[in-house]
Amino acid sequence: MKNYTIGVDLGGTNLRVAAVDEQGQLVEKITLGTQVSLGREKVIDDMCESIQQLMQKYSPSSELLGIGIGVPGIIDIETGMLRESANLPGWANFPVHSEIERRLQTKVFLGNDAHLAALGEKWLGAGRSVEDMAMLTLGTGVGGGLVLNGKIWHGMKGMAGEFGHFTVEPEGHPCGCGNRGCLEQYASATAVVRMAREAIANGVAPGMAQALSTSAELSSKLVYDLAMQGDAGAQQVFRRVGRALGIVLASIVNGLNLPMYVIGGGAASAWDAFAPAMFEEIRVRSVVYAVTAPMVTDSGEGSSAFIEPLPVGPSKTVRKTIIKRALLGSDAGLLGAARLPMIQHLGHFSRVRP
Amino acid sequence: MKNYTIGVDLGGTNLRVAAVDEQGQLVEKITLGTQVSLGREKVIDDMCESIQQLMQKYSPSSELLGIGIGVPGIIDIETGMLRESANLPGWANFPVHSEIERRLQTKVFLGNDAHLAALGEKWLGAGRSVEDMAMLTLGTGVGGGLVLNGKIWHGMKGMAGEFGHFTVEPEGHPCGCGNRGCLEQYASATAVVRMAREAIANGVAPGMAQALSTSAELSSKLVYDLAMQGDAGAQQVFRRVGRALGIVLASIVNGLNLPMYVIGGGAASAWDAFAPAMFEEIRVRSVVYAVTAPMVTDSGEGSSAFIEPLPVGPSKTVRKTIIKRALLGSDAGLLGAARLPMIQHLGHFSRVRP
Repeated sequence: MKNYTIGVDLGGTNLRVAAVDEQGQLVEKITLGTQVSLGREKVIDDMCESIQQLMQKYSPSSELLGIGIGVPGIIDIETGMLRESANLPGWANFPVHSEIERRLQTKVFLGNDAHLAALGEKWLGAGRSVEDMAMLTLGTGVGGGLVLNGKIWHGMKGMAGEFGHFTVEPEGHPCGCGNRGCLEQYASATAVVRMAREAIANGVAPGMAQALSTSAELSSKLVYDLAMQGDAGAQQVFRRVGRALGIVLASIVNGLNLPMYVIGGGAASAWDAFAPAMFEEIRVRSVVYAVTAPMVTDSGEGSSAFIEPLPVGPSKTVRKTIIKRALLGSDAGLLGAARLPMIQHLGHFSRVRP
Repeated sequence: MKNYTIGVDLGGTNLRVAAVDEQGQLVEKITLGTQVSLGREKVIDDMCESIQQLMQKYSPSSELLGIGIGVPGIIDIETGMLRESANLPGWANFPVHSEIERRLQTKVFLGNDAHLAALGEKWLGAGRSVEDMAMLTLGTGVGGGLVLNGKIWHGMKGMAGEFGHFTVEPEGHPCGCGNRGCLEQYASATAVVRMAREAIANGVAPGMAQALSTSAELSSKLVYDLAMQGDAGAQQVFRRVGRALGIVLASIVNGLNLPMYVIGGGAASAWDAFAPAMFEEIRVRSVVYAVTAPMVTDSGEGSSAFIEPLPVGPSKTVRKTIIKRALLGSDAGLLGAARLPMIQHLGHFSRVRP
């Protein structure tokens, strides 16, 4: 390969570092556990060591265009400070960007992990055919990213895309952000487990109660499996997930009228359990979706293939609003991180104001 | 003047047509009643007649750069069709754009009225100092517009900015759009009157009941006057307005992280009655606002002057999220309509895809 970048996905659980070429090929990937409990310095040591290992291997023969790092939490891109991070305790108000650049003596680009997952899906995944898309990442929390005109929409300070903190229920479940009833409280893996526990405690989910008595742990995966096996209580939990997603997506569709909305993250694998309720809500709640929705097919509502624009005359196209699953799985953020220095290199990255 | 444009604000009540110069000076304004009941043809006749009147007067000495027309309702900018309009019954699926171009034999630019109000405020009003802003227009309904990088964000088909149809209460008051609990059902002038009627009917607003018995009509203006005179029932109505606005603004702030949000339209004149509850909600509900909010001053939260970026070092600025009232009153949409052909002329208008 001629040029390459190094992407880093610094998660609360895993630390992944990869060399990626300009076609998006993962040339080499190093996966470590993120040793959060050993402190900030140890995590940064591990990260820099893996980066240097890849640099020593590939830089003699290829040109390193830069290093992109995805970090969970709210980053102030003007200052390179991490403002809030639930998954990296002790990192708040830490100048991540300058510290890493100082250690590596190389240009480093920092991004929010969910923003970079959206960029990754736009580059190589579900959003390849569009220039504008929003992505929701359903994991421990609910992250979000917005790509407009092919670039991450950072907003004023890099804090855009916090769709997980859109209010779904004004007087709903308290959220760590200070709000009540955030999407994150109904559509994250954490929320699935909480809602299942509530249903068991309320005595409305005998099937889940029984399964839990024979299983070591109540996980979102277990609730999903039960829902797919037909358990009514588990299905009801995912209807709540779908309803909350539908309410928020309806608002985003009404507000931005984008051609594509992508749902990723670990909990998106429960798509079959939550998507029907999600589409039902969006159809009723978004007048914009109603006039731009694709036809419903047996395989779901635009859930499989992207519907290409149909030419209907000179400069007129029939364009539809597509809501679909992400394609890159857990690599989306890593690939998005690797993409950052490339688009900077191409001169496409200019949202930080003078 | 060297160049000019003609702007049209085609409202459900008033039809306004103006010649505007490149500095934003309203050179001449014609105001007519919109004779909706006499049918589409009559309204278009009146509009074209006023436009031609201005063209005959100014085109001999100045160059007409184009005509911009703001229309209430959902416009498909790819086809120039009006898809839905509550205020113009009988216009749905009418090819407004081609019909007007055919009659005038001149280049015409069409826009949603709330989008153009946002563009007007960005050009000459509250948003002069920013490139990115969202605007909510509180009138009979609640319209919205988004300006990103100095241009209207149309979205895929020109339907973006429908913030009035963000869901506030998932099981709330039914909305004409098919949803329940839309912002429009809590923050429009219509909603103020409805909520006041409900409060009177529920016996919780004796002051309003008494005022109504001596007044010809229950209007949002009357409810506002009562609130300012200290009537508890009327104040409660505006707290509900502020709460709904705060819930939706918190989501928009979390999603887009813009430097400015502008509130205009006739019902925005009740700012003093709803703004305190609005800011209270936003502060609690938006983690992004919480870390970017300006200090609260005696005159309110950034409600008066725009806070300029403070330089704090090389390429670092302290930027705040400003939420403020619109400045142009009922001329915002008219001036925005006049602006459309100018930015097209400057080559800045290119969202319609090939």
